[in-house]
Amino acid sequence: MLVSVIAGGAGFIGSNLLAFLAEENRQLVILDNLSRGREVYLDEIQNLYPDTVHFIKMDLSNHIHTLNAFEFAKTFGEIDEVWHLAANSDIPAGVNDPNIDLKDTFLTTFNLLEVMRNFKTLNFHFASSSAIYGDLGAAILHESIGPLLPISNYGAMKLASEALTSACTESYLNRANVFRFPNVVGIPATHGVILDFIHKLIENPNTLNVLGDGTQQKSYLHVSDLVAAMLKIRSQPIRSKINVVNIGPVDEGVSVQWIAEQVTKRISPFAKIEFGMGNKGWVGDVPRFTYSTEKLQSYGWKPNLNSAGAVIRAIDEIASQLGQ
Amino acid sequence: MLVSVIAGGAGFIGSNLLAFLAEENRQLVILDNLSRGREVYLDEIQNLYPDTVHFIKMDLSNHIHTLNAFEFAKTFGEIDEVWHLAANSDIPAGVNDPNIDLKDTFLTTFNLLEVMRNFKTLNFHFASSSAIYGDLGAAILHESIGPLLPISNYGAMKLASEALTSACTESYLNRANVFRFPNVVGIPATHGVILDFIHKLIENPNTLNVLGDGTQQKSYLHVSDLVAAMLKIRSQPIRSKINVVNIGPVDEGVSVQWIAEQVTKRISPFAKIEFGMGNKGWVGDVPRFTYSTEKLQSYGWKPNLNSAGAVIRAIDEIASQLGQ
Repeated sequence: MLVSVIAGGAGFIGSNLLAFLAEENRQLVILDNLSRGREVYLDEIQNLYPDTVHFIKMDLSNHIHTLNAFEFAKTFGEIDEVWHLAANSDIPAGVNDPNIDLKDTFLTTFNLLEVMRNFKTLNFHFASSSAIYGDLGAAILHESIGPLLPISNYGAMKLASEALTSACTESYLNRANVFRFPNVVGIPATHGVILDFIHKLIENPNTLNVLGDGTQQKSYLHVSDLVAAMLKIRSQPIRSKINVVNIGPVDEGVSVQWIAEQVTKRISPFAKIEFGMGNKGWVGDVPRFTYSTEKLQSYGWKPNLNSAGAVIRAIDEIASQLGQ
Repeated sequence: MLVSVIAGGAGFIGSNLLAFLAEENRQLVILDNLSRGREVYLDEIQNLYPDTVHFIKMDLSNHIHTLNAFEFAKTFGEIDEVWHLAANSDIPAGVNDPNIDLKDTFLTTFNLLEVMRNFKTLNFHFASSSAIYGDLGAAILHESIGPLLPISNYGAMKLASEALTSACTESYLNRANVFRFPNVVGIPATHGVILDFIHKLIENPNTLNVLGDGTQQKSYLHVSDLVAAMLKIRSQPIRSKINVVNIGPVDEGVSVQWIAEQVTKRISPFAKIEFGMGNKGWVGDVPRFTYSTEKLQSYGWKPNLNSAGAVIRAIDEIASQLGQ
């Protein structure tokens, strides 16, 4: 029996991926520190596949604990792949304290790759981020663009993780898929602009305060389309040991103002929206960028939802999740 | 009085830099773990400037020790700049044990940048490497090229350091100069192909065994030209908070075979040179690349020695250093 280790598998994206992996007749071992993830996100899949889905609460920045977790995973069969979806996803927190991104975003990668080498696990699927591009202005962000000058510690530690992954394909990995994620929306929501706005409106139904002037334009992908993209990339024949692929919608995105309006409409239609100054929400926030997904589309993938559709659906899903 | 902190300042490049910084009427505080550096390399400059040059043997991967070292440096005046030349320079060692590059190449950067933030030191001069480019085949390696897929842990941890530096220019640094170093030769030699060959020939004057088939072509810069380039870059007006500059000779380099022949000629003229297989010396070695130094030349810098001249001079210097 083949075993997949899913680091960060109890989080937003991991928990959405599990249903598809479980159908492959694999054993799934989920490692998560539950900083953002929740064990309850695993309930449905564990009920459906009680003999398949295994969970360890642990800290992947601890090398020994990671080794021990792989020993556990190995009892179910051959660990042939690792999905690395664990990271600090609170970008502003990482700007204030770089140790957070060092530990949760980079050292998780470092330990996983080290332990994979020990266990001869040769396939690595890594959730990187569009944040590695930094602010390249009006340039079209394709996978080969440079220079890579991230403007947040989060982006820096994702780029550091990519770099280490690349070096490992030279020394022992057979295959590394590096997924550069866009902004992803859906449930179970653990963070992000939609959840923030809904929380604010629940707290104060009369006013929604928005960081920045609302003109930040970003593209959003629904998590269902993201998971489909990762599996599509994983199913490609190996052309090179490392395959870096942007994942994102095909459109140019929507503005924060538009999202604020949609959330308000759904949660508290008479709330007043108040904007701040500047077109950056926080230090390390990239105001606007255009993301090339030509490579991914060349594999035959297309999103079912564009940015607007993904946001609308996610607002409804998250509102329901919060009982609104 | 202004204070420069020079991390790795007792090493090969650091010790060459000190003479120029000492002339600027600055206090110099050198931090070095002496893994490759030697206190004796500081003797000459300390004799010339006894009240200017201060040395602490310490491990920059230790956050508390780094903080303490800055407290010491601050007693001499305002720490306005840090030169970060500390790294593991043994690339094959880092391939075998990634913890070496994590600790000595990346965590040194992480700690320095963290402590600089605490001490409000706003100028950072960082010795990166052409290794961050990985193997881009025949492409001309200019500063904005991508993708950046390093093939050694050393290159990966240098790219990680660049990425973090970039993020810090967004949050607090006023200026970061990122020097992408070529292969540098000269004295005091602590590592590198020339030193290896001379050591081998001293041990066995009859035969020189060369890793790889000798066709690896690389460009080399003499350390005197390197130091001049760093100071030239530092003297430029600030155009952007982060300035990434390739440093290297203008020529296409020389082959390992040619270097082996020159070393043999100088050390043991009748030795037989025996080559291995393949055009990579070790995992993570990039066989051949063309390095653009147009940006640096636009500042008015030119090397005094080309690759061949730098190697010839360094062979003579290193041979003398070893009493040959």
